[in-house]
Amino acid sequence: MSSQEVSRVSLSAIQTSVNSDLEAVYGELGRIVSSDFPPIEDVNRHLLRIRGKLFRPTLVLLSARATGNLTRRGITLAAVVELIHLATLIHDDSVDHSVLRRGQPTVNAMFSHQIAVIMGDYLYSRSIVELVGLDDLEPLRVMSRVTNEMTVGEMREIEAHDVLDFSIDQYDQLIDAKTASLMSGACEVGVLGADPLYRAPLRRFGRALGMAFQIVDDLLDYTSTEEVTGKPAGLDLREHKITLPLIAALPQMEQAERDLVVALMSDPEPSVASVAHVIDAVEQRGGIEAAQTRAQEFALLAEAEIDTLPASGARDALRDCIAYVVQRRR
Amino acid sequence: MSSQEVSRVSLSAIQTSVNSDLEAVYGELGRIVSSDFPPIEDVNRHLLRIRGKLFRPTLVLLSARATGNLTRRGITLAAVVELIHLATLIHDDSVDHSVLRRGQPTVNAMFSHQIAVIMGDYLYSRSIVELVGLDDLEPLRVMSRVTNEMTVGEMREIEAHDVLDFSIDQYDQLIDAKTASLMSGACEVGVLGADPLYRAPLRRFGRALGMAFQIVDDLLDYTSTEEVTGKPAGLDLREHKITLPLIAALPQMEQAERDLVVALMSDPEPSVASVAHVIDAVEQRGGIEAAQTRAQEFALLAEAEIDTLPASGARDALRDCIAYVVQRRR
Repeated sequence: MSSQEVSRVSLSAIQTSVNSDLEAVYGELGRIVSSDFPPIEDVNRHLLRIRGKLFRPTLVLLSARATGNLTRRGITLAAVVELIHLATLIHDDSVDHSVLRRGQPTVNAMFSHQIAVIMGDYLYSRSIVELVGLDDLEPLRVMSRVTNEMTVGEMREIEAHDVLDFSIDQYDQLIDAKTASLMSGACEVGVLGADPLYRAPLRRFGRALGMAFQIVDDLLDYTSTEEVTGKPAGLDLREHKITLPLIAALPQMEQAERDLVVALMSDPEPSVASVAHVIDAVEQRGGIEAAQTRAQEFALLAEAEIDTLPASGARDALRDCIAYVVQRRR
Repeated sequence: MSSQEVSRVSLSAIQTSVNSDLEAVYGELGRIVSSDFPPIEDVNRHLLRIRGKLFRPTLVLLSARATGNLTRRGITLAAVVELIHLATLIHDDSVDHSVLRRGQPTVNAMFSHQIAVIMGDYLYSRSIVELVGLDDLEPLRVMSRVTNEMTVGEMREIEAHDVLDFSIDQYDQLIDAKTASLMSGACEVGVLGADPLYRAPLRRFGRALGMAFQIVDDLLDYTSTEEVTGKPAGLDLREHKITLPLIAALPQMEQAERDLVVALMSDPEPSVASVAHVIDAVEQRGGIEAAQTRAQEFALLAEAEIDTLPASGARDALRDCIAYVVQRRR
């Protein structure tokens, strides 16, 4: 654990080499979403105030750099990728009735549920208008496929409620569609315009990275505390979200433990104690370890993909992204 | 009134000449939305069961025919236009908490609010994927602009709550964005591939037609009864929707009548009697007539645009569409 602490990679360190580009991306975002209708500008101001980590735009920029291809268009593509991510978060929060995101009120909480649905649609359709303006079908091909996959992922997520009948395969399909697809698309559009040879490896890199990212996200819900992540531990369980640690632990559980899980899943308001019991059982039956191993496997897959790129600072930064994803604590 | 009754044009009569194409459009719709994830197919089945009037696809087909240009691609474009319309309706119903649409349960009522938001996103992103597959940026240019306009229209609608401060200009902007944009886009994509000379006139035709369409829709809420439209009269008023008959009548009203309107608008559950009073006042102060006149003006604008097309059965059918829009009772 302490050796990991020492070598931990921070996202801001990774972003050092693309900081001025990220500033440009942020400016581009503001330009793309702007509207002459004041109520839309009200929501835009709220959204732009919360800048986010800009991880996906960072992937676009680094992929472009690593393949010798960062142009003005790359900045726009990075902004569009973040915008699609933002539109998705707004609809997700609305669907989940979430009130906080990145420590700030969600659009549904601050404005209304109606406005959240409409603004998600507004931002997504603005991002398509912007892609059309690039006069190239390739980024549209990637991003439209990705956004459609993400909606299927959302649907898979709300349909995943039968804990005893939800397999690792189904979990993989879910996180692939929900999370990995966009990271894959971010890396893929970064490469457009460069040697086509790099397109498939970077798409696969983003896919593997996204799988690891979501597995770690789901793990943090079991291992982290509120002070670190800003979310209470066990939130997924409380919301009956079935993730890898639980799926992996379930076959190793005794009947009494399994009964606990089933009881929690059928309780609309699970108690803190029952959540803590299930977290304990998951840990003791190897669920945490199994999920960590699987995240590591995807990290190795991701690494293998970028080994094919020519050596560069940007390639090293992409490799650091893998370390960041696997080691992050929030 | 009775002369209008005699000359009334039915949509099904207009559609006679494109019936086999509409069958193909309906089949294409089913192909485009299909998914290998069963919960999505459940919603698709429900949506396809309610076939709708297919008015917008009819506009695509007739525009294509009238400019000598109906190909296989026109069928796909017609299906995509209907799909975008459908996606918008699903989100609108969800935002408005509507339970019935076309006499059938809405997606939010039949499935859930969550599923309605996600399925709207699914259908919209599928329609973009389909447009990208046509390998031509022009339809994407038209439809992405249109869908973005529609979201702005939705936003204008929920922001239109101050009855004494909502002008005819604002109303025009609202219905232009909400309704006319898609009809304009339907006519415009129908022409793509034909002589570019026809593109602007048909876009303007669709725009004027859409303006008339929405004004008549808003009028019907004042003039029609539940038996004819399937919706109770005064529903817009009950939901505090400010439309042209009211806007036009308001300056002619006496203070007591205006007070009635303001009271209704601030009452979360307006009584049947107060709605009936306001409908009466609107009629007596010329609101109905003013809106009818304005619908007629847009009808004339639409007619002037298609006068530039070569004579054909399809052009006549487009002209009949204007009559259908202005005369319809539901």
